[in-house]
Amino acid sequence: MNVNQLLAKLYAELPPENTGVVASYIPELAHVDPDKFGAHALTIDQREFSFGESEEGFSIQSIAKVLSLTMAYQRENKNLWERVGVEPSGTPFNSLIQLEQDMGIPRNPMNNSGALVICDVLLDYLPEPKKDLLAFVQSLTGDSTVGFNERVAASERGTSTRNRALIEFMRSFGNIRNNTERLLDFYCSLCSIEMNCRQLSRSFLFLANDGVSPFTGERIVSTSMTKRLNAIMQLCGLYDEAGEFAFRVGLPGKSGVGGGIVALRPRDYCVAVWSPPLNKKGNSNFGMAFLEGFTSQVGESIF
Amino acid sequence: MNVNQLLAKLYAELPPENTGVVASYIPELAHVDPDKFGAHALTIDQREFSFGESEEGFSIQSIAKVLSLTMAYQRENKNLWERVGVEPSGTPFNSLIQLEQDMGIPRNPMNNSGALVICDVLLDYLPEPKKDLLAFVQSLTGDSTVGFNERVAASERGTSTRNRALIEFMRSFGNIRNNTERLLDFYCSLCSIEMNCRQLSRSFLFLANDGVSPFTGERIVSTSMTKRLNAIMQLCGLYDEAGEFAFRVGLPGKSGVGGGIVALRPRDYCVAVWSPPLNKKGNSNFGMAFLEGFTSQVGESIF
Amino acid sequence: MNVNQLLAKLYAELPPENTGVVASYIPELAHVDPDKFGAHALTIDQREFSFGESEEGFSIQSIAKVLSLTMAYQRENKNLWERVGVEPSGTPFNSLIQLEQDMGIPRNPMNNSGALVICDVLLDYLPEPKKDLLAFVQSLTGDSTVGFNERVAASERGTSTRNRALIEFMRSFGNIRNNTERLLDFYCSLCSIEMNCRQLSRSFLFLANDGVSPFTGERIVSTSMTKRLNAIMQLCGLYDEAGEFAFRVGLPGKSGVGGGIVALRPRDYCVAVWSPPLNKKGNSNFGMAFLEGFTSQVGESIF
Amino acid sequence: MNVNQLLAKLYAELPPENTGVVASYIPELAHVDPDKFGAHALTIDQREFSFGESEEGFSIQSIAKVLSLTMAYQRENKNLWERVGVEPSGTPFNSLIQLEQDMGIPRNPMNNSGALVICDVLLDYLPEPKKDLLAFVQSLTGDSTVGFNERVAASERGTSTRNRALIEFMRSFGNIRNNTERLLDFYCSLCSIEMNCRQLSRSFLFLANDGVSPFTGERIVSTSMTKRLNAIMQLCGLYDEAGEFAFRVGLPGKSGVGGGIVALRPRDYCVAVWSPPLNKKGNSNFGMAFLEGFTSQVGESIF
Repeated sequence: MNVNQLLAKLYAELPPENTGVVASYIPELAHVDPDKFGAHALTIDQREFSFGESEEGFSIQSIAKVLSLTMAYQRENKNLWERVGVEPSGTPFNSLIQLEQDMGIPRNPMNNSGALVICDVLLDYLPEPKKDLLAFVQSLTGDSTVGFNERVAASERGTSTRNRALIEFMRSFGNIRNNTERLLDFYCSLCSIEMNCRQLSRSFLFLANDGVSPFTGERIVSTSMTKRLNAIMQLCGLYDEAGEFAFRVGLPGKSGVGGGIVALRPRDYCVAVWSPPLNKKGNSNFGMAFLEGFTSQVGESIF
Repeated sequence: MNVNQLLAKLYAELPPENTGVVASYIPELAHVDPDKFGAHALTIDQREFSFGESEEGFSIQSIAKVLSLTMAYQRENKNLWERVGVEPSGTPFNSLIQLEQDMGIPRNPMNNSGALVICDVLLDYLPEPKKDLLAFVQSLTGDSTVGFNERVAASERGTSTRNRALIEFMRSFGNIRNNTERLLDFYCSLCSIEMNCRQLSRSFLFLANDGVSPFTGERIVSTSMTKRLNAIMQLCGLYDEAGEFAFRVGLPGKSGVGGGIVALRPRDYCVAVWSPPLNKKGNSNFGMAFLEGFTSQVGESIF
Repeated sequence: MNVNQLLAKLYAELPPENTGVVASYIPELAHVDPDKFGAHALTIDQREFSFGESEEGFSIQSIAKVLSLTMAYQRENKNLWERVGVEPSGTPFNSLIQLEQDMGIPRNPMNNSGALVICDVLLDYLPEPKKDLLAFVQSLTGDSTVGFNERVAASERGTSTRNRALIEFMRSFGNIRNNTERLLDFYCSLCSIEMNCRQLSRSFLFLANDGVSPFTGERIVSTSMTKRLNAIMQLCGLYDEAGEFAFRVGLPGKSGVGGGIVALRPRDYCVAVWSPPLNKKGNSNFGMAFLEGFTSQVGESIF
Repeated sequence: MNVNQLLAKLYAELPPENTGVVASYIPELAHVDPDKFGAHALTIDQREFSFGESEEGFSIQSIAKVLSLTMAYQRENKNLWERVGVEPSGTPFNSLIQLEQDMGIPRNPMNNSGALVICDVLLDYLPEPKKDLLAFVQSLTGDSTVGFNERVAASERGTSTRNRALIEFMRSFGNIRNNTERLLDFYCSLCSIEMNCRQLSRSFLFLANDGVSPFTGERIVSTSMTKRLNAIMQLCGLYDEAGEFAFRVGLPGKSGVGGGIVALRPRDYCVAVWSPPLNKKGNSNFGMAFLEGFTSQVGESIF
């Protein structure tokens, strides 16, 4: 059985009923067909395998937080960790409780508050933030068709009261510097990035390749920084289900409420999966199960 | 430079002053010489490297929680996760707050409450709990001289009011079944196990070898269970500094308040380090720094 | 309409259905007839008014905490407040969360942890704790038939794991001194005191009379201490429904899970009501409504 | 000794050193002379007593929350309690933790979040909110010189990030309806009201007079509503020191970070005191001590 066949077999072995629910808090996301399913795996020597609607674009949402983090880390290096931590939170992704106890320093850059701080950092560096962000993502992917979904971005802007609260709260501790509306606008654009599974696995492949783009040979971040970005994904990438993901799948990964999950095996491969219905923790229900099967059958996890 | 030389060099590069403090809450531990330092690395093909007081025994304390967990996991398999979770906690290691919110189910088996539940499970299985536990640890280590430190165990029994509170609290939710004093006695013996760095790295080597003892060829746990045990160490092994450890060291590991830390690279090696002074999170201050240097220089972390 | 008629009218005006539920966590209490209802009002010049089963004994439970507090306050005076606070808690009555944040000092003597500390204080003073407590309660009531209900006390001892956890937790902070089982035994006896509405209003009347027993003229506590005891009842007497009680009833009062509530108007009267079904906050559902009507119609609250 | 003499004597008996600290988080308040001290007592039959700088205006800050609450309660009556609770919070006055647990419903109208909801209610009713509010306060006081301190209001607007966070957070739960900046502007004006002790005690006297202005005979709120407003002050008026205030002073009262405290004895008198240095809980340090002495010596508290 080749890897393409394995992807099909894993899909066939999913439960007949998906008990997950499509995210509804962003109206534009609620319209997605819950039966969509795509997967794409890609090795660092650029062999590609795919299944299902792997070429259909979806909203990558929080997955994009890894890419903005990479940009900020390139610019701030270790100074970045004075404004955001690297510890798992143990509480849901938009909680203010821990932020209050920690004096406005988010636990990690993968939850909403931390990702907002990262965006605040980038606004201080990028001359044209949205354009520069998109250029970076396109260069990682090697695909200039990757773009924002403006309707999703607009929909998010209209439902961002909780994020506005997070911003003002962190500002009261001195950890936000830019204008609230400008920051929210940038953040909502970030989350609205649309990719298909193939593009998504391509954009993360440098993290499986010690920080070097396998497509261009360009170094994106140092080996040490790559290791640290992967560690953050491992411990914080799936909200308060990071332990479950490490336990079942065993790879660094990141999920989004659009139903995407991307995971990678260092020095080996990257895999992206998309299935919109989410479990109670906000992660793709079938995506988790599919990746668990994938790492079990493909062989070694990092552990 | 060979690995023995590397260990010496890493030691030489530690800061001149150790800002950590030796644990004092267990009186017997407070007497340890803060300048003690030992390290031992061991590959799955049984090459050994050492530095300093690597043959001097110390109290492994919470590190033993991984060994008791292994015993319980052998017996209960996945049923075990109905009584204890696999998520990092985000709060200090002996917190009751999360336990109250989670209805008496500890977040993970590495914090005190979770380790007490694991001991409660073992009391239901083992005819002679302390003797059986020791036999298991000795067989893993291949060394029948490993034993409990009775003075440390007695000292812990005398300062275990917080653990008694945890037991009664979990019992009020139905998650403890055995007699409190019997359970505390077993738990305090577990934590009092004494090993040197060489023994410690030997006892954990099966976790770097897909669950098989490299010394005897005996399978201790399945490949899948090994992967899961390593995932739990990765996410929960260093209390609320697990993120920092993954970030800086990048390996699954476990620490104890005796100043020991053990870490392992799957399918490669296991390394144990001992330096009694602890940082504010309760982990060996020099141990963390030493392991960070080790993985940087030895090469690839798992990420 | 005289006061006896008023009591009957208020009863007649209660809703036809009682949405409350009889406490079940102490097995012995679960057997009580939910339709029982009694009320007794008593002025400081000893005029008495009653309705329903006002002569039928019931388990006063937490109401007794005011009486043990009075005994401890007599002995320790203001030193008492080094071991227990006087602030409302904002959390349910048996929460460990706040206790952890406050380093083992209970917020107030009306929640379980605070009442346990009060019992711990009394064990240091009373030669024969249970006998001495009962003698004090009998003297306040002027009725030597008041006693413990041994079956209720035994039933509570059998379900006191949570209280045992509270004790061990506070002991770990140094705020409990006596043996756990001895303390639990005393506490369970305290809660098992049985009175009828008439006895209950008599036992609290000194708090409406500036600290002096209206029956014997004996001073129980000073005017200043009386004022403070009433303030504690006002702010903490009905768990996390103290605000609602102040808002609707407007008198200092104390409730118990046996369905009793006692309230008093300083320099005027004391009133006790009994109806076993409890609302979601653990206070007598009809008792609250009855007292709200009573203070509305009898006239002035303290506010 | 007459009451004027009593006020002087109580002042003379304060400790020689004031350990409190003047509030600094609103820059304009930080400039106040810490040695200022004023007191004014006023009976419902309009006898007046004063001491010190009782005619010097100061920023009443949170004390004004009782007056805006009164306006909102007049208009919404019991519907008001669907948007804000009446329970003490047990946490500091600007905490978001409880707000998260309670789904955006503030515990009471005396903390910042609750007062913001009250302002949001008023914005729906008042054609000219600031003007209408001031007219109401002037009519209660019988003094048309009462006004906003525009410099304080501006200073507060410049430091209101935490309140902006509270607003957005409650809006995310659907409990805020008006524009954020408009709401903050109104709220900051409310807090900037300036009065002297004499004016302050006059403005609260209706609450000691069953809801009727003793100056004009006009009914402000019903007897029942008066009782409820006083109950809220009693339980929630001094942030998380409400228990201590009830315990030591024994009257319903309200404090502000400007150093003012007003308290009242129903059907008797109202008393206002001003001393800028605050204790750790944010209440006037000398104000608390002075009022404790006052109620001890003037005689009966409400308890």
